[in-house]
Amino acid sequence: MNKSKLIDAAMGRIPCDLLLTGCQILDLLGHRIVRGNIAIYEGIIVGYGDIELNAKERIDLNGCYVSPAFTDAHVHIESSMVIPSQYGRLVIPRGVATVIADPHEIANVCGEAGLDFMYNDRSPLRTYYMLPSCVPATPFDSSGAILDGAECKKLWEKGNFLGLGEMMNYPGVIGGDEDTLSKLNLTSFIDGHAPGLSGRELSAYVCGGITNDHECNTAEEALEKISQGLNIYIREGTGSKNLEELIKAVTPYNMHRFAFCTDDKHIDDIYREGTISHCVSKAIHLGMEPLTAFTLGCVNAPSFYGIRGLGAIAPGYAADLIIMKEPDPDTITDVYLRGVRYRDEALPIPDTTAVRGTLHIKPVKAEDIQPQSGPDIPVIDARPGTLITKPCYPESTEGLMICSNIERHRATGRLSSAYVRGFNIKGGAIAQTIGHDSHNITVMGDNREDMAVAVNGLGSDGGITVVKDGNIIASLPLEVAGLISAKDYREVLDGNRAVNLAITEISEDEPSSLLMILSFLSLLVIPELKISDRGLFDVTRFEFI
Amino acid sequence: MNKSKLIDAAMGRIPCDLLLTGCQILDLLGHRIVRGNIAIYEGIIVGYGDIELNAKERIDLNGCYVSPAFTDAHVHIESSMVIPSQYGRLVIPRGVATVIADPHEIANVCGEAGLDFMYNDRSPLRTYYMLPSCVPATPFDSSGAILDGAECKKLWEKGNFLGLGEMMNYPGVIGGDEDTLSKLNLTSFIDGHAPGLSGRELSAYVCGGITNDHECNTAEEALEKISQGLNIYIREGTGSKNLEELIKAVTPYNMHRFAFCTDDKHIDDIYREGTISHCVSKAIHLGMEPLTAFTLGCVNAPSFYGIRGLGAIAPGYAADLIIMKEPDPDTITDVYLRGVRYRDEALPIPDTTAVRGTLHIKPVKAEDIQPQSGPDIPVIDARPGTLITKPCYPESTEGLMICSNIERHRATGRLSSAYVRGFNIKGGAIAQTIGHDSHNITVMGDNREDMAVAVNGLGSDGGITVVKDGNIIASLPLEVAGLISAKDYREVLDGNRAVNLAITEISEDEPSSLLMILSFLSLLVIPELKISDRGLFDVTRFEFI
Repeated sequence: MNKSKLIDAAMGRIPCDLLLTGCQILDLLGHRIVRGNIAIYEGIIVGYGDIELNAKERIDLNGCYVSPAFTDAHVHIESSMVIPSQYGRLVIPRGVATVIADPHEIANVCGEAGLDFMYNDRSPLRTYYMLPSCVPATPFDSSGAILDGAECKKLWEKGNFLGLGEMMNYPGVIGGDEDTLSKLNLTSFIDGHAPGLSGRELSAYVCGGITNDHECNTAEEALEKISQGLNIYIREGTGSKNLEELIKAVTPYNMHRFAFCTDDKHIDDIYREGTISHCVSKAIHLGMEPLTAFTLGCVNAPSFYGIRGLGAIAPGYAADLIIMKEPDPDTITDVYLRGVRYRDEALPIPDTTAVRGTLHIKPVKAEDIQPQSGPDIPVIDARPGTLITKPCYPESTEGLMICSNIERHRATGRLSSAYVRGFNIKGGAIAQTIGHDSHNITVMGDNREDMAVAVNGLGSDGGITVVKDGNIIASLPLEVAGLISAKDYREVLDGNRAVNLAITEISEDEPSSLLMILSFLSLLVIPELKISDRGLFDVTRFEFI
Repeated sequence: MNKSKLIDAAMGRIPCDLLLTGCQILDLLGHRIVRGNIAIYEGIIVGYGDIELNAKERIDLNGCYVSPAFTDAHVHIESSMVIPSQYGRLVIPRGVATVIADPHEIANVCGEAGLDFMYNDRSPLRTYYMLPSCVPATPFDSSGAILDGAECKKLWEKGNFLGLGEMMNYPGVIGGDEDTLSKLNLTSFIDGHAPGLSGRELSAYVCGGITNDHECNTAEEALEKISQGLNIYIREGTGSKNLEELIKAVTPYNMHRFAFCTDDKHIDDIYREGTISHCVSKAIHLGMEPLTAFTLGCVNAPSFYGIRGLGAIAPGYAADLIIMKEPDPDTITDVYLRGVRYRDEALPIPDTTAVRGTLHIKPVKAEDIQPQSGPDIPVIDARPGTLITKPCYPESTEGLMICSNIERHRATGRLSSAYVRGFNIKGGAIAQTIGHDSHNITVMGDNREDMAVAVNGLGSDGGITVVKDGNIIASLPLEVAGLISAKDYREVLDGNRAVNLAITEISEDEPSSLLMILSFLSLLVIPELKISDRGLFDVTRFEFI
């Protein structure tokens, strides 16, 4: 940034590039709405309000509202099933200019090659990457790559990362595990992940240098965590929707300790409702004062990460702007990035050689799938809208689904199965190479035969298959690490729609939510009962059952 | 900080050093008061609230209130007339654990040697230094040292500085001066100084990367500056008292954009009322909600400078604590620094060889002092409680004081004189080697003879002299750069009291305020009419008259 030129432009000694006139400006630093103009030079705001400056171009916004663009405080882009550049095309039109991304999904499959792939797939979206801290998430996982302390140090020194990604291994932190602590010493920007952690365990976790949490389920939990020094990211994704509950905790006095994030959101949900724009809009519709909602969506996340000049309309800030008919992201008409009106265009597809062909399994037979049942064997109770599961003990297995997790990185043939309550599939199965965070195969169905067909149909690249009565009726190839398609986002959207439509043929469950929750049944750091390729896992006791 | 040990202590696996019990804890992150205990290990808080942990020592606070310690967001320690270590002894008992200090007074006299002297005079007070950006304050100054862009870069690379000190040369910034801009590119933490700046000039100044301002005179000015991206430091010093006016601008929505500072405060005022403790207490007495006042005094300044782990009670934060009978700093009973109860003790006096003997002048005769008068020649109108002066044109010089400024670094003999309104000295004069920011000699009196005696009595080290009827009736040697005494603060206090008492023999003006305002009559960056050794200066037009 050439300060000299900015100052010249601000003083009117050289013309600005653009003057937006007739604006109603969301002055989020001053917490008020100001009528006036916004002057932009080389992508940077050099003045706003009651000002008049020469400019090469003037655009009259005719009373429209102008807000700074949004930042997603924590997102795994992989969960959208598109590559970062295509992800930008999805979210920028909804006003997101910046994301703090944690590429730990692809890291679990491909390690450094995956991180490099994501980092190098650039787009107009400002994408800051956190170094994944928990690959694998736990010592009990069977991942494709392992990033121990030494490996993390090596990766950190590449200089590609803003901080350390979510430290999900809270047992490691509060247990004082040496390798875990060595990661916490890499930087002072450390994302947290501590669902339900409280009291002295929470204090110990925070002593590790963790600065935020996006796993709160109740307003009370959020308030305890703020008091213990964490910033709270209100998550509204596909599988977890915490916004309605957590905004109860927001007051004028603590509002600068909250931000919005999506964590994991499917492409169809993103396309349908947006990401942070949806959070801001939903918060407003639920009664949050609009300037507060925009502050959470725009100002706070860049501030938490010490990123200067993003998230507000003020001199020296990036001219990443949202134009709206009303102060509500539902009414966005235009988005400006670096002072230029954003127009969607096709982007080159990157080379995926280094990150494809990641599926290595032995063919699965129906008889390999042997879920156990009995009075002492818990069934996984899953619910829509949350990734948290509970153990339950129904009297019979009638109406329960079968779920299996199959190691897919090294063709070990490891497979475990369990019964699941909360879903309703009839005469079919769904398999996918998405299974947080090791991304082994997760498959669910009401019969073992269809489940085997679904798994064996995943090919060598992986993706999602839907089987009905012994036949694959839809599939979505996700050739990048078995998680992402490198295609144009519209093709992925179409493919995903076909899969969702196919799912409706075998289930009454909402397809996106079903796929998302299925993919999280193997995440051993979210309470309480999960399944890996090695068996059922009690997250609370942090051990296999 | 050994995270492993902190975690062990937080979890109770090893005993804490100290458990404060029976506390009413000011939880400023959560904006509430919490009853409970505070656990401390190696100077760091490892837990608080409803916790019980083993500890080597337990202290029952019996319902006392506990707050984090204060930070002074911007202070020139030199204005206290004691060295940094002695300054610590003055402010720590009043709850200040941290200061962001700008040593630009001594830098104007001694350059790098002065900066080194301050940096090396360590004490328990956490003292962060900003690199002085404006030595001298303007090209019109006659200072003892010059820190141009190249010199600043060299000094910055020593690694002793947190950021760039107050950029007072706003004409240089908004004029795009190359040397000034080179300083602004050293760091992203840049203190501001922009009294009355508004509109496009303010925008241009902020485009230079300036992040705060401590020169607001009205709530309206503060609100404009916040909207333009600056944090506001509410100043309550000896010469400038802005608190009562500026707290009108503080709301729950913007309270995290304000901090308290003293800027310049005399030793007697510090001793009598404290510094930030006084700001917090005064704000509360003026009606500010106590938790908000403490937030401004404790939380915000460290946050503005990206200093982690200071200013709140939470795990991982420094155990710099204030114990009070009520949530009001007027009731402080104890202060803890790094988890240890603070006890005042004498400190070693540092070697001052490199920073003394800085006074080089030719003897001054009464006839050298020739203030001009006439209908077109402005008189300086000074007022208590503000450093801002105005030009005025009284019909006669009756009742006006004479003020002179005399170059003192290179014995050039340069001297200029003017009339001043607003003070009332009878039969005497006051001279001092404090004269912001070049620290030439400022002398004021009602007659030229006493003025000459006062100047000639300053010796080779400098200080303050008070003359009555031709005789020096009191003097305070300030051997460090002519600004500071290296003695124990109690001796300086006594010496200063003697000077103040002597002033009351020749004037009805409040002595501290008189000395402070006199010392600022030469600061060419505070509006509107100032005097240097080269003559009267119009600050608004930034030129000599």
